[in-house]
Amino acid sequence: MSRYYIGIDLGATTVKTGCVSSEGKILLETKVSTEAHQGPQVVVQKIMKTVEEMYNRFGKASIEGIGIGAPGIVHNGIVKAPPNISEWDEVNLQSKIANLTGIKTIVENDANAAALAEAKFGAGKGKNNFLFVIWGTGVGGGIILDGKIYHGPNGGAGEIGHTSIDFNGPQCNCGNKGCIEAYIGQRYLSQRTREMLKLPGVVSSIETLVEGNLDRIEPHVIAVAAEQGDAAAKEILTEAGTLLGYALTSIVNIMDLEIVIIGGGISASPRFVYDAITQTIQTRVLKPHRQHIQVLRAELGNAAGIIGAASLVI
Amino acid sequence: MSRYYIGIDLGATTVKTGCVSSEGKILLETKVSTEAHQGPQVVVQKIMKTVEEMYNRFGKASIEGIGIGAPGIVHNGIVKAPPNISEWDEVNLQSKIANLTGIKTIVENDANAAALAEAKFGAGKGKNNFLFVIWGTGVGGGIILDGKIYHGPNGGAGEIGHTSIDFNGPQCNCGNKGCIEAYIGQRYLSQRTREMLKLPGVVSSIETLVEGNLDRIEPHVIAVAAEQGDAAAKEILTEAGTLLGYALTSIVNIMDLEIVIIGGGISASPRFVYDAITQTIQTRVLKPHRQHIQVLRAELGNAAGIIGAASLVI
Repeated sequence: MSRYYIGIDLGATTVKTGCVSSEGKILLETKVSTEAHQGPQVVVQKIMKTVEEMYNRFGKASIEGIGIGAPGIVHNGIVKAPPNISEWDEVNLQSKIANLTGIKTIVENDANAAALAEAKFGAGKGKNNFLFVIWGTGVGGGIILDGKIYHGPNGGAGEIGHTSIDFNGPQCNCGNKGCIEAYIGQRYLSQRTREMLKLPGVVSSIETLVEGNLDRIEPHVIAVAAEQGDAAAKEILTEAGTLLGYALTSIVNIMDLEIVIIGGGISASPRFVYDAITQTIQTRVLKPHRQHIQVLRAELGNAAGIIGAASLVI
Repeated sequence: MSRYYIGIDLGATTVKTGCVSSEGKILLETKVSTEAHQGPQVVVQKIMKTVEEMYNRFGKASIEGIGIGAPGIVHNGIVKAPPNISEWDEVNLQSKIANLTGIKTIVENDANAAALAEAKFGAGKGKNNFLFVIWGTGVGGGIILDGKIYHGPNGGAGEIGHTSIDFNGPQCNCGNKGCIEAYIGQRYLSQRTREMLKLPGVVSSIETLVEGNLDRIEPHVIAVAAEQGDAAAKEILTEAGTLLGYALTSIVNIMDLEIVIIGGGISASPRFVYDAITQTIQTRVLKPHRQHIQVLRAELGNAAGIIGAASLVI
């Protein structure tokens, strides 16, 4: 009998669930609204609904394990205060789902799960140690050491987005100043683009792409414009890549991780963004690392959430 | 028969060697000039000279192991291009000394060895995970995870001093800008002090301590003046502690290490320096860490070099 793995990508808006083969291929995918405003009990019901869909299609007996990627800090299966889910302080989601299903369940921070997915099935295959960066709405990440997720003593490791590159820099939501997320997260990058487009003499295809509505600017649009050769978009993304490079330089020096894999919405950006990141690190990092730095594009794209979750139990 | 351990602190100027008990007490200490300008072969002879002194006193048969702390990158016993030692590219010091003595030998980066010494016998006793900072001539460090040194995949981890706190900051010797070492390393801190003393209206006991010769200002002197209540010295060290706090904040966020132990020349500074470091991290770090941050004074002081080296084999 074939063995399958359920991967669940728990977001504040949507629960995305897939049935995944042992080779990391998604065989079936479903999603439901999280109903996060209704609190943990309803969220658990929603998760179970998607799990039962998989039972119906593949047979419960063929499910080898259930992996869940959840937002926020996850420690020993306990999900702590995930952003944007109501009344959720600390919930042992791992034991809840394991008890409800009778199937081995592992719950992990979603960025860590995505890092593991890249390690097992993506750009990190065959690489035992790397830094995984998710560059999208915010800047998050995961650290893979010896092929495993590095959790840190309290389960909170990998907050790459809150590496400050200027102690006098822009205020970050987290309370610190100059965090790389406060320079290149979606909100800030879009803001930076709007400011640039308002400068006299700047003409950009971004304006056409958003049909003149600058509020619709998001990193994906900037990436598309850059791909089309738009100068303003190129400048913004090169600058952002350079800034990310500054943050990564410090992390390479501290942790001795010479391979960086970049995922998230911006990972679809043209090659020159990766070149900007690589060149910045190579110029600034301690000498012994310089010739070994590799900045790679994540390979799993949108599937990283489900495959990442499933890879916790594969 | 009692068992003893030889700890060797290899510096570019001096080889300091001690015989250490299994409880981490130094029983006998000796030192010779490294003669670093004469290259690795002579340096090895100098090391062996001190080892033989220990044989003569304690009997070779009672020596259980030899640990060596060496400057620069050390990977699998190979010491790579240590600063200020001539003609030393890559030398497998571990196998050289093991072959010459027939005794189990472990060679480690000196900052890592000092971190391990604090873990086994100092402020880190009973603490499995912490960041160790050596704040002296430069800013170095070591990372203890699960009670062991975290080397990183290539043996280069722990370069805490090269965490940049401002990508437009002062040029660091390493090639990067704004490294914390470029703000609070001995040279920079002394320079900052000289500049401050030249400002109109600034009166400071530092000038008395160095008998008017401002070239003699070093961190130790600033610490003594601060201890005596000197306002200028206090301001400089508080500022330095705050800057160090910025760098440590990013490291705590990335690695989830909530305990920081500070050693090196500045670790003798008054409590207010530690308070400045602690307050900065607590204000800036991600929320879940805030109430758990501990900044501790290293306990082994000058003995950390020898005890650190010995603790590699204890």
